[in-house]
Amino acid sequence: MNAETELALARLEEEAEQADRDDPLTAARQRFTIPEGVVYLDGNSLGALPRGAAETIERCVRREWGEGLVGSWNEAGWYELPLRLGDRLAPIVGAEPGHLVVCDTTTLNLYKALGAALSLRRERRVVLVDGGDFPTNLYITRSALAAAPGAPECVELEPGEDPLARIAALGDRLAAVAMSHVSYRTGAMRDLAAVTAAAHRQGALAVWDLCHSAGAMPLELARSGVDFAVGCTYKYLNGGPGAPAWIYVAPCHLAECEQPLAGWMGHASPFDFEPRHRRHPGIRAFLCGTPHIVSMRGVEAGLATFDGIDLAAVREKSMRLGELFRRAVEAARLPRVELACPADPAARGSQVCFRHPRGYAVVQALIEQRVIGDFRAPDVMRFGFAPLYLRHVEALRAARSLIGCVEAEVWRQERFARRADVT
Amino acid sequence: MNAETELALARLEEEAEQADRDDPLTAARQRFTIPEGVVYLDGNSLGALPRGAAETIERCVRREWGEGLVGSWNEAGWYELPLRLGDRLAPIVGAEPGHLVVCDTTTLNLYKALGAALSLRRERRVVLVDGGDFPTNLYITRSALAAAPGAPECVELEPGEDPLARIAALGDRLAAVAMSHVSYRTGAMRDLAAVTAAAHRQGALAVWDLCHSAGAMPLELARSGVDFAVGCTYKYLNGGPGAPAWIYVAPCHLAECEQPLAGWMGHASPFDFEPRHRRHPGIRAFLCGTPHIVSMRGVEAGLATFDGIDLAAVREKSMRLGELFRRAVEAARLPRVELACPADPAARGSQVCFRHPRGYAVVQALIEQRVIGDFRAPDVMRFGFAPLYLRHVEALRAARSLIGCVEAEVWRQERFARRADVT
Repeated sequence: MNAETELALARLEEEAEQADRDDPLTAARQRFTIPEGVVYLDGNSLGALPRGAAETIERCVRREWGEGLVGSWNEAGWYELPLRLGDRLAPIVGAEPGHLVVCDTTTLNLYKALGAALSLRRERRVVLVDGGDFPTNLYITRSALAAAPGAPECVELEPGEDPLARIAALGDRLAAVAMSHVSYRTGAMRDLAAVTAAAHRQGALAVWDLCHSAGAMPLELARSGVDFAVGCTYKYLNGGPGAPAWIYVAPCHLAECEQPLAGWMGHASPFDFEPRHRRHPGIRAFLCGTPHIVSMRGVEAGLATFDGIDLAAVREKSMRLGELFRRAVEAARLPRVELACPADPAARGSQVCFRHPRGYAVVQALIEQRVIGDFRAPDVMRFGFAPLYLRHVEALRAARSLIGCVEAEVWRQERFARRADVT
Repeated sequence: MNAETELALARLEEEAEQADRDDPLTAARQRFTIPEGVVYLDGNSLGALPRGAAETIERCVRREWGEGLVGSWNEAGWYELPLRLGDRLAPIVGAEPGHLVVCDTTTLNLYKALGAALSLRRERRVVLVDGGDFPTNLYITRSALAAAPGAPECVELEPGEDPLARIAALGDRLAAVAMSHVSYRTGAMRDLAAVTAAAHRQGALAVWDLCHSAGAMPLELARSGVDFAVGCTYKYLNGGPGAPAWIYVAPCHLAECEQPLAGWMGHASPFDFEPRHRRHPGIRAFLCGTPHIVSMRGVEAGLATFDGIDLAAVREKSMRLGELFRRAVEAARLPRVELACPADPAARGSQVCFRHPRGYAVVQALIEQRVIGDFRAPDVMRFGFAPLYLRHVEALRAARSLIGCVEAEVWRQERFARRADVT
């Protein structure tokens, strides 16, 4: 590392220390258990453990299950839990209570959302997706389209293509747009309100996946007129590994749309055991089978980490963390390291990514230094910034480690090349 | 209670005490935490808490999630868990490892199984179900049929109708038979091997729901030639409230059938993030979204309660428990109490049911006496016998309580009728 880089990093470190002193979210870190010495930049894959989670889950297991037994479906509120957690999540994504429910997986909830959207636009034959979306979204969208009457066509937006122009071009053939708000790979953020409005102008519906934005920024599902939305709870919402996902249905559609996976928990009166499905008039209709109670207690603990948290402050800190990291890494002018996310923090979610041909090895070397990031094939090194528990100085420590690991990797490669010359 | 009944009960009590002394499963009760003084006859709704479950789950939360963070997907074996649990369940249902996977819910797995079965019988137009099956099965079967190409017809077996005759009559129109092995309401058990063979004679497939038999008796999925099977893990398998379910696919179909819910976890190579779905060649194809890890650790603890257990002994004890209870209740010749399950223990699962017009009130009164049974509308009182943790004398205690509660209810009704006469 040359003197110029060293000086730039020293200045950024001062800035980071000052940012930590000014941080309105500094106390939120106490809500989590972070292993000593770890800089955890993978909260966008699996959020850290909330302090109360183990106790909440243990109470569920020992008291509710062990002592309350089957009676806990009523007495411990298990039956209502998917709706109660949905109501608790509602303000985090800008929805009213009664329009969200926590259940199943993001993949399955997307299947339900698409099926429901298509049931409202039967005469339309096209669904527009982002060809670079998280693969499970592409897979399940094709499953949902194959299952819908008349099997509508799945049309993919090309990389870099403007969704607004394509939506206008598809016109009244378009049934729905289904996209992720923030790209899992590049962190690039779409203009949710503009895309939703464009879809509506063509009489189409907007289905959003908010896995990479819920809990990292203020969201306005209701105000933006979003029709359906889904997301996981195990990233920025800190619900635990594979915690049940959520689904949002706009109030104007709740009464009319059909749910393609009819199960007993979505029935208007499940314990009447009627042989014909009569869907619940409310969001409960989007439940299917028996909810995964123990995992849902983890979601409860995860959502509790947002109690009293100002999401505008979360977004501000998220951008600042990301910018400190980006500026520090770029100060080193590392060969073959390329920014893989938008440079403008307002145009990305809560992650910063760099490309490097030896990205996988670099991420492994970082993990050995207890800086935990993520690798996404073929060459993206992904670093997520969870503002509730990260410190600004950690963003700097991570940048220093990344610079060191890339330099070591380059050195290793060169040595290998020299040896190859000799032998 | 008259002297004759009292004598009959006393004799049965002696028989029960002897049965407890001879019980080869007596030590298995130590594997569970049962609240003091409770007779738990609802293990066919939610199995009791295994002793190690809280610890297994706590380790998952504190160590794997809290300390291992995202690295636990590999290091703690989370990624392999759905398959590993499937392999552990395999011998309990008579399957080979590699053909079962634990995931999602019974309802969703039934949707996958039906979709997969229909993908193998595209030219056939009918699926035969039991019209009295658990409602979620009927609902999701109609969802699966509506989603399949050409929307095959759902034909319902009438109450008491012989499935073999109907299967023969449907002939080569029949794509699949989809039924529960044991009825959730009456406990009546179907001849799984005979129905499967009858379906095969017509070139059709057999899809079974084993919710009410897995863990309560020996099963022979492979030997019986069952094509697809599903079940929950929270009844006799003791996996915990809403624990993930399982799905079995016969080896001969694994390579060929399609799965109607394509998600990333069912991809041949999920971490290559390919935009096109390429299904895994094995049972992993039946995974969809991210597995619910914390709840799955409960399944692990539940399956551990079967370590070294002889399922033939489980079935024998199950029949003996049920018979002791049935004979004791019937000895009292209670007015308006009618047996609602087959009298022959070989013809039913591990539950005994009685009908009574005031069944709901009686079950509530029983719960106040800490005898926990279940009510299924309109008038069925359902008592499940989980052989791993029930004692024979408890079956007698439950019968005595039931007799007392019915008598009290009759007395209350009569008093109410007399009062009505007076006023």
